[in-house]
Amino acid sequence: LQPVNLLELEEAAARVIPAAGFDYIAGGAGDEWTLRENRAAFERRQIVQRVLTGKVVADTATEILGTPIALPTIVAPMGGQAIAHVSAEAGTARGAAAAGTLHTVSTVATLSLEDAARAADGPKWFQIYLTRDDGFNAELLQRARAAGYGAIVLTVDVPIVGNRERDRRNGFVYPPAAAPRNFLDAAGRLRPIERAFQPRLDADSIAFVRRHGGLPVVVKGIATAEDALLALDAGAAAIQVSNHGGRQLDGAPAAFTVLPEVAAAVQGRVPLILDGGIRRGADVFKALASGADVVALGRPVLYGLALGGWQGVQSVFQHLEDELRTVMQLAGAATVADIRRTRLYG
Amino acid sequence: LQPVNLLELEEAAARVIPAAGFDYIAGGAGDEWTLRENRAAFERRQIVQRVLTGKVVADTATEILGTPIALPTIVAPMGGQAIAHVSAEAGTARGAAAAGTLHTVSTVATLSLEDAARAADGPKWFQIYLTRDDGFNAELLQRARAAGYGAIVLTVDVPIVGNRERDRRNGFVYPPAAAPRNFLDAAGRLRPIERAFQPRLDADSIAFVRRHGGLPVVVKGIATAEDALLALDAGAAAIQVSNHGGRQLDGAPAAFTVLPEVAAAVQGRVPLILDGGIRRGADVFKALASGADVVALGRPVLYGLALGGWQGVQSVFQHLEDELRTVMQLAGAATVADIRRTRLYG
Amino acid sequence: LQPVNLLELEEAAARVIPAAGFDYIAGGAGDEWTLRENRAAFERRQIVQRVLTGKVVADTATEILGTPIALPTIVAPMGGQAIAHVSAEAGTARGAAAAGTLHTVSTVATLSLEDAARAADGPKWFQIYLTRDDGFNAELLQRARAAGYGAIVLTVDVPIVGNRERDRRNGFVYPPAAAPRNFLDAAGRLRPIERAFQPRLDADSIAFVRRHGGLPVVVKGIATAEDALLALDAGAAAIQVSNHGGRQLDGAPAAFTVLPEVAAAVQGRVPLILDGGIRRGADVFKALASGADVVALGRPVLYGLALGGWQGVQSVFQHLEDELRTVMQLAGAATVADIRRTRLYG
Amino acid sequence: LQPVNLLELEEAAARVIPAAGFDYIAGGAGDEWTLRENRAAFERRQIVQRVLTGKVVADTATEILGTPIALPTIVAPMGGQAIAHVSAEAGTARGAAAAGTLHTVSTVATLSLEDAARAADGPKWFQIYLTRDDGFNAELLQRARAAGYGAIVLTVDVPIVGNRERDRRNGFVYPPAAAPRNFLDAAGRLRPIERAFQPRLDADSIAFVRRHGGLPVVVKGIATAEDALLALDAGAAAIQVSNHGGRQLDGAPAAFTVLPEVAAAVQGRVPLILDGGIRRGADVFKALASGADVVALGRPVLYGLALGGWQGVQSVFQHLEDELRTVMQLAGAATVADIRRTRLYG
Ligand SMILES: Cc1cc2nc3c(=O)[nH]c(=O)nc-3n(C[C@H](O)[C@H](O)[C@H](O)COP(=O)(O)O)c2cc1C
Ligand SMILES: Cc1cc2nc3c(=O)[nH]c(=O)nc-3n(C[C@H](O)[C@H](O)[C@H](O)COP(=O)(O)O)c2cc1C
Ligand SMILES: Cc1cc2nc3c(=O)[nH]c(=O)nc-3n(C[C@H](O)[C@H](O)[C@H](O)COP(=O)(O)O)c2cc1C
Ligand SMILES: Cc1cc2nc3c(=O)[nH]c(=O)nc-3n(C[C@H](O)[C@H](O)[C@H](O)COP(=O)(O)O)c2cc1C
Repeated sequence: LQPVNLLELEEAAARVIPAAGFDYIAGGAGDEWTLRENRAAFERRQIVQRVLTGKVVADTATEILGTPIALPTIVAPMGGQAIAHVSAEAGTARGAAAAGTLHTVSTVATLSLEDAARAADGPKWFQIYLTRDDGFNAELLQRARAAGYGAIVLTVDVPIVGNRERDRRNGFVYPPAAAPRNFLDAAGRLRPIERAFQPRLDADSIAFVRRHGGLPVVVKGIATAEDALLALDAGAAAIQVSNHGGRQLDGAPAAFTVLPEVAAAVQGRVPLILDGGIRRGADVFKALASGADVVALGRPVLYGLALGGWQGVQSVFQHLEDELRTVMQLAGAATVADIRRTRLYG
Repeated sequence: LQPVNLLELEEAAARVIPAAGFDYIAGGAGDEWTLRENRAAFERRQIVQRVLTGKVVADTATEILGTPIALPTIVAPMGGQAIAHVSAEAGTARGAAAAGTLHTVSTVATLSLEDAARAADGPKWFQIYLTRDDGFNAELLQRARAAGYGAIVLTVDVPIVGNRERDRRNGFVYPPAAAPRNFLDAAGRLRPIERAFQPRLDADSIAFVRRHGGLPVVVKGIATAEDALLALDAGAAAIQVSNHGGRQLDGAPAAFTVLPEVAAAVQGRVPLILDGGIRRGADVFKALASGADVVALGRPVLYGLALGGWQGVQSVFQHLEDELRTVMQLAGAATVADIRRTRLYG
Repeated sequence: LQPVNLLELEEAAARVIPAAGFDYIAGGAGDEWTLRENRAAFERRQIVQRVLTGKVVADTATEILGTPIALPTIVAPMGGQAIAHVSAEAGTARGAAAAGTLHTVSTVATLSLEDAARAADGPKWFQIYLTRDDGFNAELLQRARAAGYGAIVLTVDVPIVGNRERDRRNGFVYPPAAAPRNFLDAAGRLRPIERAFQPRLDADSIAFVRRHGGLPVVVKGIATAEDALLALDAGAAAIQVSNHGGRQLDGAPAAFTVLPEVAAAVQGRVPLILDGGIRRGADVFKALASGADVVALGRPVLYGLALGGWQGVQSVFQHLEDELRTVMQLAGAATVADIRRTRLYG
Repeated sequence: LQPVNLLELEEAAARVIPAAGFDYIAGGAGDEWTLRENRAAFERRQIVQRVLTGKVVADTATEILGTPIALPTIVAPMGGQAIAHVSAEAGTARGAAAAGTLHTVSTVATLSLEDAARAADGPKWFQIYLTRDDGFNAELLQRARAAGYGAIVLTVDVPIVGNRERDRRNGFVYPPAAAPRNFLDAAGRLRPIERAFQPRLDADSIAFVRRHGGLPVVVKGIATAEDALLALDAGAAAIQVSNHGGRQLDGAPAAFTVLPEVAAAVQGRVPLILDGGIRRGADVFKALASGADVVALGRPVLYGLALGGWQGVQSVFQHLEDELRTVMQLAGAATVADIRRTRLYG
């Protein structure tokens, strides 16, 4: 896979993923206003050309929660990856490792968290959705720790599933082959999942995950100063600014739009991860220059997976790194630290 | 009727309502700028995702002028509903009651106000247009009280009928089957209506309606602080911020745009109702967060009626309630009171 | 002619006027940005619905330089009207008179100024372009006075003809039948006109026109405070804010946009006329609420003329008056003086 | 060649230049956002009509670094002009000379700098890209001086080649006929060019060019106050504000947008040249009124060359001068100095 850019992958992926599955991946909530806005917000800020600094791009490497990564972009958690490709999370894990970055495995991954962990030896985090069953939650967290995950990503922006109209039109449900193995009961039957999600989430939820996981907790789905401070107080190790890729609250501002507000509240006490609409090296640059420590990539990873298996995933990250390097050089930033010091325009 | 959203109902309704009747319903004045702007204005404000509040949606119930309703959305008055469906206002009344909400019957309803009142036992208001004939006005008000209506909605934004170009092109007049029964004279013949409307409206008009109706008066069609204060001084029990769904003064700002100005003037002394362009749960949320106590829904009610009779109307409200609940949960609002305390973004 | 609105007249006129002639009328300079902006600027300000004032539209009558007119809209000077209709300026004069308004005859009218003056007995002004030949200029001014014109409109925004690309593509020149009779020499041959225009215009030009015309001078083509003050100092009796309908300097702001700046500079010392993009009653209203005393209408007059002769012109003004009345009623303005006191929104 | 305007030349040129070559010329980096924005930025500022100043356009002549030119527009350096026309830089040089303006020859010109210099006797500058081979750099600079170039333009915004997606899709490389003769080695074979470019550029680079060229140095590719001050300190004789026509850093602001920031930093100590998106006389006017001393024209020159050889190039400049004269007259500017004193609107 040699993408000219990550935007055109969507169209190509639409030709290889079955239609309803593609809609599930590509779609957003409601009018998909927030989905589009996640991209549009990046256009409202500009990067100024700096070309007399005498700097030459040295490196795109950075780290997040102590884990070194080759570029400031990691894999966002996404469920049911068998919808995109038969290798599912194993392909994504292997591709991410090959690209030198970190992979997050979803609670509702097709593969069990143990199988996903085994697929590659790159760094990995486990993303948890709390269900109403605390026993099961604790069990999942212990399994994650046992399987060697380095952190737990607690996703808090799905107290209820968003209004995904494409899915309602398509009558979409996960096909059996993509069913989340973590939810298989003793008899190998799937428990009803989404309705089992815990809608009540607060500081105690974070404390629960810290206690039972024994790992640093990244709180994902923060979009305001208020929630950021709640998460900080409850001991979050990192905050992932996200509106779930426009899949939950349509009419919410872009993730990139609220990033400065969250950054101002957090004041560097914990690292910030941003996801939503990242498609260009320039987007990565703008996010880092606006307060993010790293960004996470969602849909393009699945398109790469669908189009080229683990190598497709690797290509996606390599391509993004190439774009980022070009932007860095033209903006006079030799390192990721330089990017963070850059002021944007607009 | 199982709408995926209320926006797509318009297209579906265009296929079942005769063309000129559909244009009468769907159309607005002039260039239809204000009609479009009533929707566009909602996009300029955003709802921020709040997901660590520990709140779970409890209830969408609220009340207006002492009447409990299941959701903060009522039926806006609309004339000649036989244009949309043979059951006319009876269907709408029954649907609204089934959905647990309040129904407003128009002066120019197809059914007589008594027949409309009889159709269902949900809460109902009667909307009056003052004619130049005060005797007739007083008579209508007494009939409304006798028929059990709980309030009078005095519409003040039709001193003259707006410049509806679709109707002029179509040569549209109410078809006989939709003729407003309230205007039948002793001999069963229709009095000429619109030209009989009273163009001079002021504090005295409100006083007249209070005196002869003996019911709380909602003044509908307010779009400025000045008119709001005039209405308050004249004893209005509630104010309905409205530009008549873009059907009257094209080039006027959106109803949602002027809501904060009216709210600031009224300062909570009487409840505020907003109508115009409400199509999404998110719109209801934004209106309440901007000072409205409840909102009123216009055209989508007629589309639901056209497509599914009273059950269509019920579905429209149920769907809106479903959307609202999802938005509330994602915005951290457990109750309607919580929505009112929320700050918007943008 | 019964127009639904004045905007759609353009398309209809395109079917009856020969193509290159139509392009000459409808077109503007360069990218036609200013032509479009003349319309777009009106959308950026809104009229607020005022419906409890107790006012009923009384009258659209007003006056300009002492001449009473039935509505606050006059005819802008336009040359070569035989391009639109065989009756040329005679038709326009008669239509304007029938509508109760004032007509301005251009220097480059098809008919001689005497014939145009004779065509109807409504109020009329003569518009002059100064040529490099002062003798001819003085002669024209004396003829205008003799023919009974009430004022001279000195157009100052054509020191050079704008870059009209449609005309260059079409190789357009006035057809013989539309040739400006005022420029016929003794032998009945046309003098070369445009290259004879005087490009140097200043306070002296105004003084010259006052001296030789002996009539009040309206300076047309003012778009800044600076030029307005120059005109005032030189004794202008009125100022016509205009960018020549987007036909001269493409990239200039809309006439409506610069109106407040000119109004602030003039401070009511002389009346202001605005032209450019007026198509709706709402536009007339907005212009008057922004400082104009009356507005002038350009292209739609020619479209009315082309489609219906003098009656077409009359219909155009009657239609505009109808629209204006509706707007006035909904905005709580009973008279033209009320409009001027209204504050706009946006 | 008699262009109606310079914008439509692009389409015409697309029909005569081979597709991949056309894409190389017309295209930009990434999403081509900056390419489009270079044009769009001009629309956000307006020129106000000034018509009572008594001024008549005298002259469009000006000078840059002591060289008199007939209009304030020069030729921007562009490589490989044989892609557009067989006469290559010789045609451009001759056309520029015929139009009375200055021509800049690129390092990667098709013709050797000596051949390009010989082609016409108008004023000419040589544009240099520094390679990693300082011996070669010094040699080029000495050759340029020997060949009679009046200044060296040091382009600093290509430390790395931008992400040109059209070229990647087309697999575009300079065709042999367009290969840059300056890079031929002793054996007549082309050295690998782009990868040989020096990415590290700073004050020393400017000093190097001054030392070895012995000519005034124009630093091209400045887009911030910071880089402008670095260039000034290093002894730049002029600064060319440019984002390389949107071909390098996509997502950078328009060149016209950053011009005022650079002008404020430079405070007139050296002349400013602006390039990027100039297509209209009005753009030239706006750039000069915003702080530029002259502007440089890129792509339209190549389109003129492709469509009409040297005469095409001459026509392009003559047309732009015609447009500029019209704008000047309507804006009340008699000279280039007057333009610089004009305030824009918006
Ligand atoms: C198909 C799909 C499935 C997803 N599943 C999960 C999930 O299981 N857990 C989670 O926290 N986020 C999930 N997300 C949200 C992503 O983690 C991320 O927030 C979002 O995709 C980022 O936006 P982007 O796709 O525009 O890059 C999912 C997103 C997609 C597209
Ligand atoms: C077909 C139709 C008929 C209407 N008739 C009346 C009426 O008789 N009385 C009244 O006060 N408002 C009337 N309205 C205005 C509505 O009460 C309400 O202000 C408007 O429809 C709200 O905008 P929406 O349709 O965008 O929700 C009518 C609206 C429509 C669409
Ligand atoms: C076909 C045509 C001819 C015109 N001729 C003249 C003219 O001879 N003298 C003049 O002062 N203005 C002339 N104008 C400008 C108009 O007076 C007026 O400024 C402009 O048309 C107003 O804009 P509108 O057409 O958008 O209403 C002409 C305009 C048009 C469209
Ligand atoms: C085909 C092409 C080749 C170019 N080659 C060079 C070059 O060799 N050196 C340079 O400094 N700039 C080069 N440029 C950039 C131009 O000098 C200039 O900055 C840009 O074209 C101005 O934008 P415009 O094309 O919108 O007028 C090139 C531009 C184009 C379109």
